[in-house]
Formats: sequence, C-alpha cells, structure tokens
Amino acid sequence: MVTGSKIVLIVEYDGTGYCGFQLQSNGPTVQGEIEEALRKLTGDKTRVLAASRTDAGVHARRQVVSFRTGSVLPLEAFGNGLNYYLPEDIAIKGAARVDDSFDVRRGAVSREYKYYILNSLARSPVRRGFVHPVTGRLDTEAMNRACQVMIGRHDFASFVTGDDTGIKSTLRTIHKAEIKKEGDLVIFDVVANSFLPHQVRNTVGALIRVGQGKMTISDFKKMVQAKTHGLAGPTAPACGLCLMRINYPNPLRGETWGDIS
Amino acid sequence: MVTGSKIVLIVEYDGTGYCGFQLQSNGPTVQGEIEEALRKLTGDKTRVLAASRTDAGVHARRQVVSFRTGSVLPLEAFGNGLNYYLPEDIAIKGAARVDDSFDVRRGAVSREYKYYILNSLARSPVRRGFVHPVTGRLDTEAMNRACQVMIGRHDFASFVTGDDTGIKSTLRTIHKAEIKKEGDLVIFDVVANSFLPHQVRNTVGALIRVGQGKMTISDFKKMVQAKTHGLAGPTAPACGLCLMRINYPNPLRGETWGDIS
Repeated sequence: MVTGSKIVLIVEYDGTGYCGFQLQSNGPTVQGEIEEALRKLTGDKTRVLAASRTDAGVHARRQVVSFRTGSVLPLEAFGNGLNYYLPEDIAIKGAARVDDSFDVRRGAVSREYKYYILNSLARSPVRRGFVHPVTGRLDTEAMNRACQVMIGRHDFASFVTGDDTGIKSTLRTIHKAEIKKEGDLVIFDVVANSFLPHQVRNTVGALIRVGQGKMTISDFKKMVQAKTHGLAGPTAPACGLCLMRINYPNPLRGETWGDIS
Repeated sequence: MVTGSKIVLIVEYDGTGYCGFQLQSNGPTVQGEIEEALRKLTGDKTRVLAASRTDAGVHARRQVVSFRTGSVLPLEAFGNGLNYYLPEDIAIKGAARVDDSFDVRRGAVSREYKYYILNSLARSPVRRGFVHPVTGRLDTEAMNRACQVMIGRHDFASFVTGDDTGIKSTLRTIHKAEIKKEGDLVIFDVVANSFLPHQVRNTVGALIRVGQGKMTISDFKKMVQAKTHGLAGPTAPACGLCLMRINYPNPLRGETWGDIS
C-alpha cells in the first residue's frame, strides 16, 4: 500500500498511439505509461486517476491526474523525472501537492473539449493526426444555431452511442457550445459539467450534418428532444478531439511546479 | 522536353523527414516527391521550381512552386491527383494556370516566415516537431525591441552563417519583424523581400540570447552594424521554422483550384 501525500499532475498527450487513457489489456494506454514512469522514478506501484477518461486516439492539452505516493521527492523532481521516463508523446506540464480530500474527478466543476474539423479540399500535413478532414463547405452559422439548442441542462440521451448501456443518468449541463472558424479550421468548443461517453464526437457528427445541410435546426432540436440512444452522430473520428482543460472551484495552491494555471 | 502551359501550386509540408526542398543526392526532398508524383500523374519528367528553398527539417504552410506541363488535365485533377500520389507529409492546397512569364521566385515581392519557440518547463507532445523548446523565461519585450532594429533595408551580413560563402549581396529589406506570445509559445513573425541562407534561424538564435538577457539591445544593434559573417546565431533548430506565405503583386486569377488566396 502506498500512503503519504497526494499529487496532482497536468498532463499533455498525443493520443494517436494509445488505446485511450484508462488501462486496457489490448494495448498501451496513457495511464499505463504514467504508472510505469512513476514506478521507475519512485520504485512504487502507484495507481493513477484521471479527471476525464479520454477514448483511444483522443488527445489532451491539460488532462488532470492524481496519485498517492510515499515518495518525498520535491515536485520539480516529479515533473522532470517523469518527463525523463515518459515517451515523447506524453508530458507532465505541471504538478501540485494537494489535500488528501482533493478528488480530481468529483471535484471538477467542468470539462472543456475542442474538436478540430479541417474544412478544406486538401489534407493538412502539418496538422495531420489532430484534425478531422471534411471537404465540402460547412455552414458554420447553421452549426452555431444548433449549438444554441444544447446549452443548459438537458437530457442528452440521444447523444449516447446506441450500444453504450449502463449509464445511470443522461442529464448533463452544457455551459458553452460554440463553432469558430480559424482559417480552414472549423473548431467546436464545448464546456460541460461532465460528458457522456462519445458525447462530443456524436455531437460533432450531428453538427457536421447540419453544416452540410443534411439536417435542419428543427430536426436537430427534435433529435435532442427525442432522448433516444443512437440518434446523434455519426461518431466523428477520435483524432479531431482534444481535452483542453478541467476546471476546479479553487486554483491549486501550496507546493507547485511548472504550469498549473 | 516538356512544353505547354505553366502551373503554380500552393504546397504545405511537414519538413521533418526531408533534406529540404531542393533535390539532394543524400536523401528525400520535397522537390523530389512532387516531381515523382507529377511523373506518375502525367507520365512526364517535369522540373519543379520553388519560390523559397527551405532547409532540411523546415516546414511550409504555403510554399509556392511552378512547373511546365504538356498535360491538358484540368487543375482539379492536378490537385487531387498529386495529393493521391504524394506522401501524407506533403499536400497540394491550391493550383492556378499562369502566364508563361510568371516567375515564382523573381516575381515574389515578399516572403513570410514564422519561428515557434516553446517557452515552457516541459515539452509539448501535441506540437512536437514544430516548436523549439527553450525552458528559461524569455523577455519578449526586449526581443521585440531587438526586432525594431532590423526593420527596413539593411546589410544583414552578420546574419550569414560563417561558412556560407558566395552570396552576392547581403542587403535585404525587412518589412515586418515581431515577437508575439500565445500561451506558452513565443512566435517570431518576419516578412522580407527575400532572406539570406539561415537568416531567420540565425536571427532567432540572437533574439533568444536577447530574451535570456545574455545580449543587450545595444549589443544587438552593434552586431547588425558590424556586417560580419557568423556574428548572429547560434542557428536555431530547423523544426521551429515554417514558411507561411509568398506574396505576389497581383492575386492569381484565371483557371484555379482549391485555396490560392
């Protein structure tokens, strides 16, 4: 048993090569890599918890994870030491020592994701692996009107993939949902208290249908109101999705290292 | 001999895997890949010319190249066909049929490059290969004051690497030189009529010294005024550099495909 203090890490990763955050038997995971690096650094077997479990192929700019350790290493040594042992597609950006009561998952008040659509006739070599290419012109104003429909507290059952079962409640609160154009990128920026499995990717699939004129705003609204699994979608590819940040009621304080903003 | 019409292409590439734009005997080049894709598409051996020859490992968002072809394929077939044959780290973004007198190199009035410095304690997995990491805090205001010194028409001999010889004139006109902070990125944005070999990377090396407090603005000014090869630098790594665009006096018109803006 590892006792001692609790440490929170801010983690960035390129999810391309991973079967998601959480440990899997069928391939490498971000959790597995961090736990292995911790074992090399501290000598202990340590379990790591994430604020938001990302799917296979999904990226993160500021994932938040926590673990308990008996190690008395200073936080700087945790940051630099883990970055030394981690592969180049995972990095620790910041670290903080927190109260044992701090819960990265239940303590989080909201999560922000962005989904990057490349709306261009041609692919983009410098952004490959981080964008989902859609060649036909997208009506971003219509997509933004559809976003408005989702803001607030709603039952998002229609955004659950058909074969996802065992979800207790499909009520979620969306604080922000917005489509922005930046050059040839169409970016979906969404903040919610928490998300259902595949919710963001199924939302993007439906928004693309709206942008292509294949679904009206009125149909989008009806789809939300139908509260029936599998109606949204198709599930947009994982590569376009990135976990941007996790928000907590209070900023992390006390002993910190790196960028914990 | 290929005669016929002249075509201009807008090309994006991830330069990581290439020995630069121009054909080399010692490894793959962007020019070589485009010429090979053209051969597959048209059956002809065609020579491709670039507006700005990028070094090994340097990226491009909107390189401009031209070639002559006897092929009567529509431009859409050139764009889509070349993208089919090109590797995933090179893409054709747009195409235009131009007058035979159009010279991609001599006709260009200015070139824009950006250099991306990651100013953070930790590396960035999602931007790896496209940024140069510098861990210590950089004084971007001082760097911006040094930028001011370079604006206008000057003899930039000090920015030539010591062993670069055979350059006729080292006079260049810098229209814009600016340091911007975007999160943990420090971006050097520079526009000039044309650049000396390694000029941007040697400038960035000197600007980083200014940002680290290792060189004063007055020393930077003296270095420019000394007009002596090898004074600027050290040459910043190629991976942080990206050719952003080439400007011509008139927009490309007539038969076009894709994004030629």
